[in-house]
Amino acid sequence: MPAPISLDDHEALARTVLDDNAWAYFAGGAADEICMAANRQAWNALRLLPRVLRPTAGGHTRVELLGRTLAHPILLAPVAYQRMAHPDGELATAVAASAQEAGFVLSTQSSLLLETVARAVRDDADRGPMWMQLYLQHDAGFNRELVQRAEAAGYEALVLTVDAPCHGARDRERRADFHLPPGISAVNLATLPPRTAPVLRPGNSALFDDLLHIAPTWDDIARLQAQTRLPVILKGILHPDDARQAAHLQVGGIIVSNHGGRTLDSAPPTAELLPRIADVLAGHLPMLVDGGIRRGTDVLKAMALGASAVLVGRPYIFGLANAGAQGVAHVIRLLRDELEIAMALCGVTTLDDLPDDLLI
Amino acid sequence: MPAPISLDDHEALARTVLDDNAWAYFAGGAADEICMAANRQAWNALRLLPRVLRPTAGGHTRVELLGRTLAHPILLAPVAYQRMAHPDGELATAVAASAQEAGFVLSTQSSLLLETVARAVRDDADRGPMWMQLYLQHDAGFNRELVQRAEAAGYEALVLTVDAPCHGARDRERRADFHLPPGISAVNLATLPPRTAPVLRPGNSALFDDLLHIAPTWDDIARLQAQTRLPVILKGILHPDDARQAAHLQVGGIIVSNHGGRTLDSAPPTAELLPRIADVLAGHLPMLVDGGIRRGTDVLKAMALGASAVLVGRPYIFGLANAGAQGVAHVIRLLRDELEIAMALCGVTTLDDLPDDLLI
Amino acid sequence: MPAPISLDDHEALARTVLDDNAWAYFAGGAADEICMAANRQAWNALRLLPRVLRPTAGGHTRVELLGRTLAHPILLAPVAYQRMAHPDGELATAVAASAQEAGFVLSTQSSLLLETVARAVRDDADRGPMWMQLYLQHDAGFNRELVQRAEAAGYEALVLTVDAPCHGARDRERRADFHLPPGISAVNLATLPPRTAPVLRPGNSALFDDLLHIAPTWDDIARLQAQTRLPVILKGILHPDDARQAAHLQVGGIIVSNHGGRTLDSAPPTAELLPRIADVLAGHLPMLVDGGIRRGTDVLKAMALGASAVLVGRPYIFGLANAGAQGVAHVIRLLRDELEIAMALCGVTTLDDLPDDLLI
Amino acid sequence: MPAPISLDDHEALARTVLDDNAWAYFAGGAADEICMAANRQAWNALRLLPRVLRPTAGGHTRVELLGRTLAHPILLAPVAYQRMAHPDGELATAVAASAQEAGFVLSTQSSLLLETVARAVRDDADRGPMWMQLYLQHDAGFNRELVQRAEAAGYEALVLTVDAPCHGARDRERRADFHLPPGISAVNLATLPPRTAPVLRPGNSALFDDLLHIAPTWDDIARLQAQTRLPVILKGILHPDDARQAAHLQVGGIIVSNHGGRTLDSAPPTAELLPRIADVLAGHLPMLVDGGIRRGTDVLKAMALGASAVLVGRPYIFGLANAGAQGVAHVIRLLRDELEIAMALCGVTTLDDLPDDLLI
Repeated sequence: MPAPISLDDHEALARTVLDDNAWAYFAGGAADEICMAANRQAWNALRLLPRVLRPTAGGHTRVELLGRTLAHPILLAPVAYQRMAHPDGELATAVAASAQEAGFVLSTQSSLLLETVARAVRDDADRGPMWMQLYLQHDAGFNRELVQRAEAAGYEALVLTVDAPCHGARDRERRADFHLPPGISAVNLATLPPRTAPVLRPGNSALFDDLLHIAPTWDDIARLQAQTRLPVILKGILHPDDARQAAHLQVGGIIVSNHGGRTLDSAPPTAELLPRIADVLAGHLPMLVDGGIRRGTDVLKAMALGASAVLVGRPYIFGLANAGAQGVAHVIRLLRDELEIAMALCGVTTLDDLPDDLLI
Repeated sequence: MPAPISLDDHEALARTVLDDNAWAYFAGGAADEICMAANRQAWNALRLLPRVLRPTAGGHTRVELLGRTLAHPILLAPVAYQRMAHPDGELATAVAASAQEAGFVLSTQSSLLLETVARAVRDDADRGPMWMQLYLQHDAGFNRELVQRAEAAGYEALVLTVDAPCHGARDRERRADFHLPPGISAVNLATLPPRTAPVLRPGNSALFDDLLHIAPTWDDIARLQAQTRLPVILKGILHPDDARQAAHLQVGGIIVSNHGGRTLDSAPPTAELLPRIADVLAGHLPMLVDGGIRRGTDVLKAMALGASAVLVGRPYIFGLANAGAQGVAHVIRLLRDELEIAMALCGVTTLDDLPDDLLI
Repeated sequence: MPAPISLDDHEALARTVLDDNAWAYFAGGAADEICMAANRQAWNALRLLPRVLRPTAGGHTRVELLGRTLAHPILLAPVAYQRMAHPDGELATAVAASAQEAGFVLSTQSSLLLETVARAVRDDADRGPMWMQLYLQHDAGFNRELVQRAEAAGYEALVLTVDAPCHGARDRERRADFHLPPGISAVNLATLPPRTAPVLRPGNSALFDDLLHIAPTWDDIARLQAQTRLPVILKGILHPDDARQAAHLQVGGIIVSNHGGRTLDSAPPTAELLPRIADVLAGHLPMLVDGGIRRGTDVLKAMALGASAVLVGRPYIFGLANAGAQGVAHVIRLLRDELEIAMALCGVTTLDDLPDDLLI
Repeated sequence: MPAPISLDDHEALARTVLDDNAWAYFAGGAADEICMAANRQAWNALRLLPRVLRPTAGGHTRVELLGRTLAHPILLAPVAYQRMAHPDGELATAVAASAQEAGFVLSTQSSLLLETVARAVRDDADRGPMWMQLYLQHDAGFNRELVQRAEAAGYEALVLTVDAPCHGARDRERRADFHLPPGISAVNLATLPPRTAPVLRPGNSALFDDLLHIAPTWDDIARLQAQTRLPVILKGILHPDDARQAAHLQVGGIIVSNHGGRTLDSAPPTAELLPRIADVLAGHLPMLVDGGIRRGTDVLKAMALGASAVLVGRPYIFGLANAGAQGVAHVIRLLRDELEIAMALCGVTTLDDLPDDLLI
């Protein structure tokens, strides 16, 4: 297979590198993967209407986000168990992100300690934002402790995933009989006390009468905000009214996401909801987006629809599988380069105030 | 082939289990099977717009139907000659439905006596509704007797199929030269007196001048209602005006159906007509729906469009072929589980009063 | 290959019966065959919304056309050189049409004498209409003589093809290097005097400066009407204004056609134009249609859109190739049976006054 | 492989003639080639609504363009390095264009000297327009000299490409590791002084802080117009406001183009923008178009949308690869013939004032 020169090339190469177990986990989506495919199709269906002969010298990809200036608007989305993709796991990802000035979001289910990852890049001068993703657990004390660890380690924001109160119908994983390989686990959850499951009566639902009792609610968001000095970012919002509620709570930002099509198959593509949510937020809250972004043109489209920044997930995992930190860095570099090319060809010099008629 | 973990997996596995003759009968549709495919596509094309961070603990899938509370809204549609799929035939289906608290509808063309099937599950405490499907035959006395047998056996409703006054252009069956295997027949029709066909003159049509003389009409519905204390449910309605007429006759309910694409190829998908018929019925009549439902998300979509309950046909027959009663139960279980997951991910706790904006 | 039970089956079987030369001629369309494919897709895209429980006994497929009552509205379109498909050629077609009470239109380029074909069926009591298709030739005397021969032989209408002033970009034929096999020719044109081609100067066009000088115009229609007592039917009209002009000339009828996609690739499908032309004609002129009709449901859709009758071309040629007259008869029979089934399933008893809401 | 009888046939044949390196260069587009495919789909999606029985004798394909009468509206778009396709390169192209009365546009990156090419055809009586394409270079003196050479050689217009301030994400080329074969180079740029690249600081962009400093702007257009007596035609305009600006500058004309899908993947197809730009120009400026034109019907559609003429690129390069000048001539001839056929079948005699309802 020739050297990858696009994100899709990285995916094709990773298919040959990863075993079936890891592939099912990283590449799969929920059920019939209609949502996963729709994410990409939605970006592809948007068209850019370029302007010509405009002066573009001195243009740049910089954006402002949560009080920082980022070199570019590309962040790495939280993905669990990255040592399944490469022995260096989340460390390679963090190092590559830093080298490419990209932000990254460490998963709660990281296969390396959050402190280990933070320590490796925290002090890099040019690195992008370093955020920590949370799944609230059944033990309030543990949650508080985890937040404190994240703060102490230097994470700059908490990204709370809100679109996965339960596991989706992850058919690919079940078909592959997915299991964590020996030696890989959610090490940051190692001290989580075991949960005493309630006794279910006949007719009870393991979901509604057990698991969903510990799913986070809006009240938990307020509680979390009170517990931390870090901005809390909600990941997984699709409904404009939920965006409104997030704004009402003055959270740090939201990520418009359908979890890469891994939770609710049938959820609409993020590109479709983005403009409606942008209308609701009216710029009062940073709005990020992920799901199916594979090209620099997709990044530009997202920004034109009002995004503050974008996240990519699977593509950098494929880069990680292919070549460790270098692979991750290559994926980011490809996206950055394509974004610059797209801007130049569209005649825009900055990602702020993109013209309304850039999309057709 | 790995163990099935979705309804489509059951279909793929059943293809390897059933012979060509049975496969053509169970899996085929009319003509070019455009309608059959459109049924699925119409569900797939609907998208669910999830809400997040809502309390969902204590949610449930229960629905009210014809004076009973059902554990969930999934029923098994009438399918003929089930002993072609598995030696246990309709008995396995009824037992599995009961174990999974699902309703079932026995076909007039059942390959087992309606009394045998009823006896096996009638007294199960948690079973769902037990309904009997009817094709009105040419002999009024026989029809009356069949109704009385159904009443005596404990069936709770009569489901009259109204969309098949004649056989559709069932090309797959004809290509496979479909025939009933030895030992399998419509045993409940064994005592039906033979029909004296009229003498057709040149230019007469075997359809218009013979067979359609015995097809049921609205007058027959009123007559049937007068003959039975059971609610009469009309299966196969697509036109809103026919739904209006059904409501006028105060039937027990209607099933929006195109016979799974087995009669009129070119009929629209049921998902498309559902909202228009819901408008007409305005809640005065239970409205069920079948046709292409293969996922818990499809069930949720149907309920969001106003359905009182849904029926599945082919999928449980494939489960039956694969593993008898256990296969049928597995198919129902998969759908139930997926439905609960879909509800949880959408932030809804009950199937009543689903919000208007659940579908986008 | 199993026995054909649909028109598509006949096509698949004919592919194995016809040689590449004949296949290219009969099965091919113009250029990229977009129009040919669009014809079928347009019928498929229309959906029938069935009514249930209506009395349909005594229904029938009869239609009135040009003062005659036809048993059904299916006619055989003119196709040239049918002895390439089967040794019996147009004779088999005429005999089968008569046996199935279908009308047929003999091509000017018939491979058998128009008198031979007419003689075989003219006196059949139950036969459908017998029409003669014309391409006006460069010699007015010859044209007049051909019309007189058609009248004398008993043809009941003249069908003038107006959508082929020149050959289309018939790529399949050119790729196959199509040629008439020995012994097959347009025998009815045998006495046509050779044409003296004009001398083209540099920059002249063989088309505009030669061939199109002999293409028919509206004036020729009036002239032809004056020469014959037979109704003149114009075949190949798509533009509503051309239909208006035809009505103004009080021709015998029009056939909405794009020549089965064999002339102008990019022409719209006939199903799409049918309602607009029906509006223009307002019933003052018989309106027939062809192009992509392969199912009884297609016939019913055409009638619901206002057609007086329909024509099929390629399908009966494939039947002819497969089994001579019996194959042609089988094709017509399949369509008739499917039409009756479609009517019964839609709850309609006659093709007159089909309800507006039959199509959705 | 049989002799090509359509432009697509030429493409298929060329695939077997060209090596992977040249194929990637000539056949490829940007990124996922969505734009390249959309160009063709957009022409295909337009339909022609033919008129019948109109007198078409004496029709012709002549058009007026920049003060000349052209035999037909087909020009050859600028394509670089044609000696990669055939040893005769641009010379064969120019000779074939002349023989077929087609205009041609020589690329700045021609693999033969612009004087050599011009000399071969300049004095042909019936040749079409002879234009020279420009990429403005970093050296103003060189640009001026190149313009003077083009004027001296007899070129009649300068075509400035404005949609490629930088290279697109040309994935196919990168996958094929594209390189110019020995002996092939942009000979007309041989005297271009080397550029002193600026020293980039960390965080600088090779694009925005270097390359785009030399990209042309509207000011350069005015400057170029002042330097030459030739009309300046802008190639690569898609945005109606850019067309307005071009009209304001009174350039010689514009070419609506997305560079054949080779620069910005995601750009809309040219057929879609054509009517909007025609509205803006209101006939005050010649408007040409390229991108995906493969059929005579496409040419007619472009003219019906208001184009003054059309250009084709890849198809003639494939003809060149297949058979040198004869191949190029064949490609033009096929298009001309198809255009005449399309006109005849649509009942139009001239490309001026095509009726509004020709497209549906």
